Amino acid sequence: MKKLRWGILGTGSIANRFANDLKTYDGAVLAAVGSRAPETAAAFGAAHGIGAENCFGSYEALAASPDVDIVYIASPHSHHAEHMTQMLEAGKHVLCEKAFTLNAGEARRVFDLARKKGLFAAEAMWTRFLPANRALSALLAGGALGELTTASAFFGNYFPDEWPLTHRIYNPLLGGGALLDMGVYAVSFLSMLAGDAAPERLSAVGTRFAATGVDDRSVLTMIYPNGLMSVAGCAIKAQMRPDGFVSGSLGKISVPLFWKAETFSVELRGKEAEERRYPLTMGALAYEAASVTEDILAGRTESSVVPQRATLRVMELLDYARGALGCRYAADEGLCLGEGACRP
Amino acid sequence: MKKLRWGILGTGSIANRFANDLKTYDGAVLAAVGSRAPETAAAFGAAHGIGAENCFGSYEALAASPDVDIVYIASPHSHHAEHMTQMLEAGKHVLCEKAFTLNAGEARRVFDLARKKGLFAAEAMWTRFLPANRALSALLAGGALGELTTASAFFGNYFPDEWPLTHRIYNPLLGGGALLDMGVYAVSFLSMLAGDAAPERLSAVGTRFAATGVDDRSVLTMIYPNGLMSVAGCAIKAQMRPDGFVSGSLGKISVPLFWKAETFSVELRGKEAEERRYPLTMGALAYEAASVTEDILAGRTESSVVPQRATLRVMELLDYARGALGCRYAADEGLCLGEGACRP
Repeated sequence: MKKLRWGILGTGSIANRFANDLKTYDGAVLAAVGSRAPETAAAFGAAHGIGAENCFGSYEALAASPDVDIVYIASPHSHHAEHMTQMLEAGKHVLCEKAFTLNAGEARRVFDLARKKGLFAAEAMWTRFLPANRALSALLAGGALGELTTASAFFGNYFPDEWPLTHRIYNPLLGGGALLDMGVYAVSFLSMLAGDAAPERLSAVGTRFAATGVDDRSVLTMIYPNGLMSVAGCAIKAQMRPDGFVSGSLGKISVPLFWKAETFSVELRGKEAEERRYPLTMGALAYEAASVTEDILAGRTESSVVPQRATLRVMELLDYARGALGCRYAADEGLCLGEGACRP
Repeated sequence: MKKLRWGILGTGSIANRFANDLKTYDGAVLAAVGSRAPETAAAFGAAHGIGAENCFGSYEALAASPDVDIVYIASPHSHHAEHMTQMLEAGKHVLCEKAFTLNAGEARRVFDLARKKGLFAAEAMWTRFLPANRALSALLAGGALGELTTASAFFGNYFPDEWPLTHRIYNPLLGGGALLDMGVYAVSFLSMLAGDAAPERLSAVGTRFAATGVDDRSVLTMIYPNGLMSVAGCAIKAQMRPDGFVSGSLGKISVPLFWKAETFSVELRGKEAEERRYPLTMGALAYEAASVTEDILAGRTESSVVPQRATLRVMELLDYARGALGCRYAADEGLCLGEGACRP
């Protein structure tokens, strides 16, 4: 099988994690890295076995490299749209860290460009690519729980008080806040359970991090046309219950640590709970790389696991929640946050 | 120690459970039962060892009995206010099943009457009287988790489709719906964690049971002045994740099956989780009877565990949620549901 040649844009912690996990998948070549500074590119390349000639001290040089098929975008949320645009214009496929963009408007423009260029573009929501969550999704689509009734997923972390307010988690200029960093996991998981349908009604409420104004803790409730009520929660200054849950007319399923699930428990009404295990045999982020490789080699321009409509749905929901909390980024200018959220 | 002589109003399943549990507490005398029909009173009395002369075929007769100090009210929610009023007027103390009344207005009138009469009146929210929850409450009040950040409690059940629409769960004339039957546990638990403070902001969203219009599934989010965000969920046609959870700046606590808690797990930041066990040594409902006995013998007219302001707070929150869902009972006439909910 042909191997895709991957370039990595960015050298932060998630870039390192992706590079490490990519080595556990034998269908990929880690070909290049691009950074704003030659030194960090060289250091990253040395750590991950990338030849010095492919450690680029600018994103332009990475974009121009003939040795790269697809670029994994690992910059802060605030720069995703710009960097994807740059790579797509240069003819590269892109797989971009979540949150995919700052808002749904940016995501639509990126997907439009990819379509125009005939290139692949997808959100690196690695959670959905894990075997456990793919099995769960298939189970629900097959009607294992009957008609779905409720679902919940919370993801909160107490990020250190010592971190500077300029850190991307706290900094509105870098797309800071809980929704885009933590909430995106919970919302995407719940949207997956709902087949990425459009909710009929939305409600969001929460609080902001006083020091910088980004969203801190919030709850987003989605009510779907079939009656399913899903509740997402997230926080950057609070821990939250870390399990996913979904119930239906025939039973319920719990997913411990849903964002990195390797197991879930199915309890049909009147029966014993049954645990199903899907242990990882590659690094967690390798699953998205493998799936994307399969899609691209088959000539597809979007992910068969996280299609573009799924990413747009999640961004619309996050937009709505930010709007409800009054948390706007500069990139939201001219957008009515939430206006697209309930569009069927 | 003096023993209170208990009368039970009603002969349904919770009345039977209370009678059984009362036998596991040695500070009570099960003295009488009152029912609308002599046959059911006699059958209940025979099952629980109540002398035939104290099995009353009317509530009037129960109220008139000189052998009863306190009446445990076990009629449907819709009749709580009426039956408490009747017993208080006759000079009896009352302990009333939750939901205490249909709305906060009814609860205020009952408490006003009890105060006027110098009698004891309290909500039989047995969950709060359990040793585990009393210990949890004391722990939080002592600052064990630092500043509280988030909390959640969901309680849902899929009640049988076969039940008739006239069943109290489905019937608006009997105070049907999830909020008053299931939600009251989740909301009271979360209100307990917050010291029954007044939330600064509320949000509720949910769906109604189409066949009768009562509330089915809903989510109520409370944001307190100190930043604590609490999320309650309930349902009558859906299962929900059954654990309580609370986090603070110093750690988090999980409470499996919070409404009948016998254990909880404390995990302070950077430390191992520690399980604390509070096994029941009496029937679960005996704890409320024991606490109420202590209060009454000490001359108190309200519960030291579930004070009247706690019951009023919970009723206000349930009112708000019903208002948001558009679920009104006939008894709500003239009330703006939610108007009292945020009153500090």
